[in-house]
Amino acid sequence: MAQLPTITDVATAAGVSRQTVSNVLNSPDIVREDTRERVEAAISSLGYRTHASARRLRTRKSSTIGIRLDPMANGISGSIHDRYLHALTEQADARGMRMLLFTAADPSDEIAQFSRLLDGADVDAFVLTSTFHGDPRTEWLIEQGAPFVTFGRPWGIDDLNDPQHLWVDVDGQAGLAAATEHLRSGGASRIAYVGWPAPSGTGDDRRLGWERVVRSSLGYDDATIARRQVAVVDSVPAARAAVTALLDREPDIDGIVCASDSLALGTLMAVTAAGRAELPIVGFDNTPVAEAVGLSSVEQRLDEVATRTLELLMGERGRAVVQRALTPGEAHRLVTPSLVARAPVRFG
Amino acid sequence: MAQLPTITDVATAAGVSRQTVSNVLNSPDIVREDTRERVEAAISSLGYRTHASARRLRTRKSSTIGIRLDPMANGISGSIHDRYLHALTEQADARGMRMLLFTAADPSDEIAQFSRLLDGADVDAFVLTSTFHGDPRTEWLIEQGAPFVTFGRPWGIDDLNDPQHLWVDVDGQAGLAAATEHLRSGGASRIAYVGWPAPSGTGDDRRLGWERVVRSSLGYDDATIARRQVAVVDSVPAARAAVTALLDREPDIDGIVCASDSLALGTLMAVTAAGRAELPIVGFDNTPVAEAVGLSSVEQRLDEVATRTLELLMGERGRAVVQRALTPGEAHRLVTPSLVARAPVRFG
Repeated sequence: MAQLPTITDVATAAGVSRQTVSNVLNSPDIVREDTRERVEAAISSLGYRTHASARRLRTRKSSTIGIRLDPMANGISGSIHDRYLHALTEQADARGMRMLLFTAADPSDEIAQFSRLLDGADVDAFVLTSTFHGDPRTEWLIEQGAPFVTFGRPWGIDDLNDPQHLWVDVDGQAGLAAATEHLRSGGASRIAYVGWPAPSGTGDDRRLGWERVVRSSLGYDDATIARRQVAVVDSVPAARAAVTALLDREPDIDGIVCASDSLALGTLMAVTAAGRAELPIVGFDNTPVAEAVGLSSVEQRLDEVATRTLELLMGERGRAVVQRALTPGEAHRLVTPSLVARAPVRFG
Repeated sequence: MAQLPTITDVATAAGVSRQTVSNVLNSPDIVREDTRERVEAAISSLGYRTHASARRLRTRKSSTIGIRLDPMANGISGSIHDRYLHALTEQADARGMRMLLFTAADPSDEIAQFSRLLDGADVDAFVLTSTFHGDPRTEWLIEQGAPFVTFGRPWGIDDLNDPQHLWVDVDGQAGLAAATEHLRSGGASRIAYVGWPAPSGTGDDRRLGWERVVRSSLGYDDATIARRQVAVVDSVPAARAAVTALLDREPDIDGIVCASDSLALGTLMAVTAAGRAELPIVGFDNTPVAEAVGLSSVEQRLDEVATRTLELLMGERGRAVVQRALTPGEAHRLVTPSLVARAPVRFG
């Protein structure tokens, strides 16, 4: 692009001082009308544009939030982070903020990216889409005093008490409890659980939702709890094989709740193959696949997660990132998911 | 954040001129070693950081590519644009570029966003993920001389001859031809097509791939072409109903190729319900669902699409957006998709 006109060019063309041009741009009310019109004509004829970069440099504000784009997740639930990014971009836009994407090979590479982006005042804040106990990234951001919010709890000891680590998460336990309750209220009383191997912050939390309901409302004892659950990696064939074995061993099972839609799809294939297509199943994540095959599923409500994320970064109705002293209660948001109940479409 | 140290602060602390500090930052070789060490010590103790915003303002280069995030698409193929965004972000990062996301309600709103981003030198170029004949957005960008590439042809008269509209697209016709050829070489000779209602730039192109092969290799006449295809909206239940009717009417069909994985999944449900689970099916988009249920599918090769997009914007190995005079042949890239053949997992 050609050299753009400067404020000095405008001042020269209009025969006024640079200060007057600045006043027309920033406080037009204090400029005499004929002067203002002359300056505006010069701005228009020269095609002068105010520089966001100059403003950014002066204010150190970029109206931009940085987020690492996780590597593309394959599999049925792979689109969760993308759906979150969509909700976040739309809601940030409504608040005058934009999302800047970057990638990173590992946590230390990500810290190097944080550093570059902060140095250039390219971003005002970060959103992290996954975090873990002792995560060096969140420690680094806290040390630098850089505003950030994570989608996901760190699953550490101080989860709920650290006012410096702002997070939003989905209450997976409540989601699985609602799923189990849904099957129970539909008449099921021998409800099994298909989940992931422990330890898994997210997985163990979801499993507890099932356990809570089957213990309190269906009177499961420890042995029944142990017998009516399987733990497999998050894959359709693994779930299919595990549920086939489970139904062999526990033929009276009359409902199955799952930690994910991948597991639910494998479960659906197993029950269909076993001639028990009527057996009700609930998945988790409400993916397009769940909709396509008519599986009930727990919906994470990512719009709500995005709203809470921006609330933590910018205040309730804010249009700029604010750094406030928060109490632990204010620093965390747990979003209750909702159950999407569907009549089965199914196969065959 | 507190006021950051300036180059003047560094110069004062090191007892040198601002020019010397600038030399240490930009041409360290020309600075005497003891001076350089003194300046570096001052930079380090003050925590001085070079300003990307200042550099951006000076050079009008932001090393950033803007892309509108389309509204979240539901449905099985909804993740195609997200997969493209992933590939683009990763490859842009490797070239030192970042992706800036924004949203827009409609084309004129999107043009307003383009304008704001260009005014602020926030981006060097744009990628558009869908475009159409007479699209006001691409016309506006061409008028402004703003670099852009679209993923998707405009499907207009001058598609292949307009060197100002740079685009990358996937050769859907080649994809469906490969799918049809795959079934034919497996022994099928009465292959049907399930697609979308015309006119549809993408859909009509894909349909032609099937038609080409069944005419030339299987000797279909016009009547057979008409009889062995159905056109429905892109939904699983719509495809299921249409294919159920098709199989009733044309029971000797021995293979089905589809314009999308949604249509392929509906087709799979129909053939399963009809007791013809062995009937081979090929979908399009190679979605997680296709993998989960063992459907063969045409893969768009979005990594390749991203590579070609950045090549058009930045040159073969470039690390900055370049504006070049291109011939029509150079301005467009048609990526040949690949077929992912799978042994059916299936249901039941």
